[in-house]
Amino acid sequence: MKIERHMLADFARGAAFLGTGGGGDPYIGRLCCAHAIDLHGAPEMIALESLPDEARVFSVAGMGAPTVLVEKLLSIEDAHLAVSRLESYLGCRADAIIAAESGGINATLPVAYAALRRLPVVDADGMGRAFPAIHMVSFNVYGVSCTPMAIANEHGESAVIEAVSAESAESLGRPLVVQMGASAMLSCYPMTGLQAKQTAVPATLSAAYGIGRAIAQGRAEGQPVEALIAYLRSTPYYRHAKILFDGKIVDLRRETTRGWAIGHCVMAALDGSDRRCRLRFQNEHLCAWVDGRVATVVPDLISVVDRESGEPITTEGLRYGQRVKVVGASAAPNMRTPQALAVFGPHAFGLDIPFMPIEEINEF
Amino acid sequence: MKIERHMLADFARGAAFLGTGGGGDPYIGRLCCAHAIDLHGAPEMIALESLPDEARVFSVAGMGAPTVLVEKLLSIEDAHLAVSRLESYLGCRADAIIAAESGGINATLPVAYAALRRLPVVDADGMGRAFPAIHMVSFNVYGVSCTPMAIANEHGESAVIEAVSAESAESLGRPLVVQMGASAMLSCYPMTGLQAKQTAVPATLSAAYGIGRAIAQGRAEGQPVEALIAYLRSTPYYRHAKILFDGKIVDLRRETTRGWAIGHCVMAALDGSDRRCRLRFQNEHLCAWVDGRVATVVPDLISVVDRESGEPITTEGLRYGQRVKVVGASAAPNMRTPQALAVFGPHAFGLDIPFMPIEEINEF
Repeated sequence: MKIERHMLADFARGAAFLGTGGGGDPYIGRLCCAHAIDLHGAPEMIALESLPDEARVFSVAGMGAPTVLVEKLLSIEDAHLAVSRLESYLGCRADAIIAAESGGINATLPVAYAALRRLPVVDADGMGRAFPAIHMVSFNVYGVSCTPMAIANEHGESAVIEAVSAESAESLGRPLVVQMGASAMLSCYPMTGLQAKQTAVPATLSAAYGIGRAIAQGRAEGQPVEALIAYLRSTPYYRHAKILFDGKIVDLRRETTRGWAIGHCVMAALDGSDRRCRLRFQNEHLCAWVDGRVATVVPDLISVVDRESGEPITTEGLRYGQRVKVVGASAAPNMRTPQALAVFGPHAFGLDIPFMPIEEINEF
Repeated sequence: MKIERHMLADFARGAAFLGTGGGGDPYIGRLCCAHAIDLHGAPEMIALESLPDEARVFSVAGMGAPTVLVEKLLSIEDAHLAVSRLESYLGCRADAIIAAESGGINATLPVAYAALRRLPVVDADGMGRAFPAIHMVSFNVYGVSCTPMAIANEHGESAVIEAVSAESAESLGRPLVVQMGASAMLSCYPMTGLQAKQTAVPATLSAAYGIGRAIAQGRAEGQPVEALIAYLRSTPYYRHAKILFDGKIVDLRRETTRGWAIGHCVMAALDGSDRRCRLRFQNEHLCAWVDGRVATVVPDLISVVDRESGEPITTEGLRYGQRVKVVGASAAPNMRTPQALAVFGPHAFGLDIPFMPIEEINEF
């Protein structure tokens, strides 16, 4: 299946939903993708299972704070510098491109880059959502080395890092990205087709497209959020999906610090009751509390959408007074194993709560 | 000429003097060198002029805050990781090792590393002293590219950085080194023998040895600082040398911040007068004021030595109450050109004073 230009609006919208607040402004990712397709043609999206075992699969992603990405635009030329430095280092060329995360710009960027390179993009990623740190991917959880990792910026500057662990690669890469202006291009977890099949979360780019299309079709029928929930319930991973809250934003605190957009957001109910919902985020939403009780927590997905249009709103797009719905959905099974939770469960973010699957949290 | 084990005490002492307060504890550098010579034999020190034009010359240095180096010891195995990553990147092997700076540990480290590699070490460096930043070397001033630059740490982690300028390499490398614990091993300015001959400051390692030996010999005669001054006056660069102040430390402020040891030191005269000397430093001493008037300023050399033994005292070794003499000396001519002053003159350190050669500053 080719990712054609006319699919990009839906694809970017769905990727913004899977970004769970992070991953950057989908509009920028969509423009970047459209431009690449205009210049180089539509890239083929291939199923994860179709990858030959010995294929060389390279990831490409933006790293930094999405708040910065609004002003400091990305470029697939910088992404190419990162990937090509890694190719030189490893002495091989990419056979396919894979997304590290399927959220926001990091879902659209690999598609744009695959177009530039006239390579297939794999319908998969390392989480089926977005996360704020390099080590928080299934590739790492299930044994693919994060390094060598290449970081590149818009000045043609780059670094190839070797680290002892993905956590250490994150620790070394983050201050470099901060120095580069808190947004840079990244290629890491170089892997074989076999490794990709063993570790990735499959069918997540096509899910992003399906989510975006469901919202658009629902919008035409005046029920975008309901259509979104219905679509999520039809997918293999996101099927435990529900509206966690319906309200307006009454408190918002957001800082660009240590290379991330960190903060919290409080919503008040619109139904006249005094119910409240609170979100905590680090680029992505980490936990949603409704009336003080956990309603959804990482790695399960929490996304804020416009209550009328169903359009996903990234954390840097949140504004005081916005009318929104908060949607929760289950993560993929390989994102919920004990090994996975050790890397990106609540404790990994300093939240002193156990992981509770969204489907096991009672309605209140 | 081989650098033999019995020469190391003098060599390290002289390197500490040329370190102008920075470059790290010479005792550590001396032990490191002695160990390498015991294991691998004494390395040959060759004259800069004797380098073949096409020789591949690699630098090796520690980067970070000398205050940290007291606790976090260095290792030539880490230095080897940095150099070998650069060799792999460039696809060639080192023919000779050169010091980036001839001050402190960064003078002894290349000697130890040359021993390990059984390669000659060049009797030269990039400044004839020490400076706190990667771009502050004659190699950069006269056109050698700082990058590719490799940084390595004690965990076997490393990065190879490409940057658009030496200043940018400094900006990208510094936060990485801070993340690595504010001390890491570095190899940068890979160059040919021709480039080394065109840009380096010659005969500075042998000068370090001569300085250290002069202090030791003077000590035997009870006149170490006088012997030091006499020796400096016999050298081609450091010949405008004098004692700037004789006093005790009455105020000292020193912080390890942004990856450097930054601070100031005030001394009161011992002769009963109310004369004062103030030093400002960033790893190295940048300016000495006596009674509020500039007595010596970068790139000319300012070193603090023990007033009885003549032993150089690094900035992290300064203590309240120490009795010291402050010595000033002229820098090499290629360190004082307008291009050189633009990179490491007073303005480059935020000092709002013009460069005044020490020999043109009147006695007061």
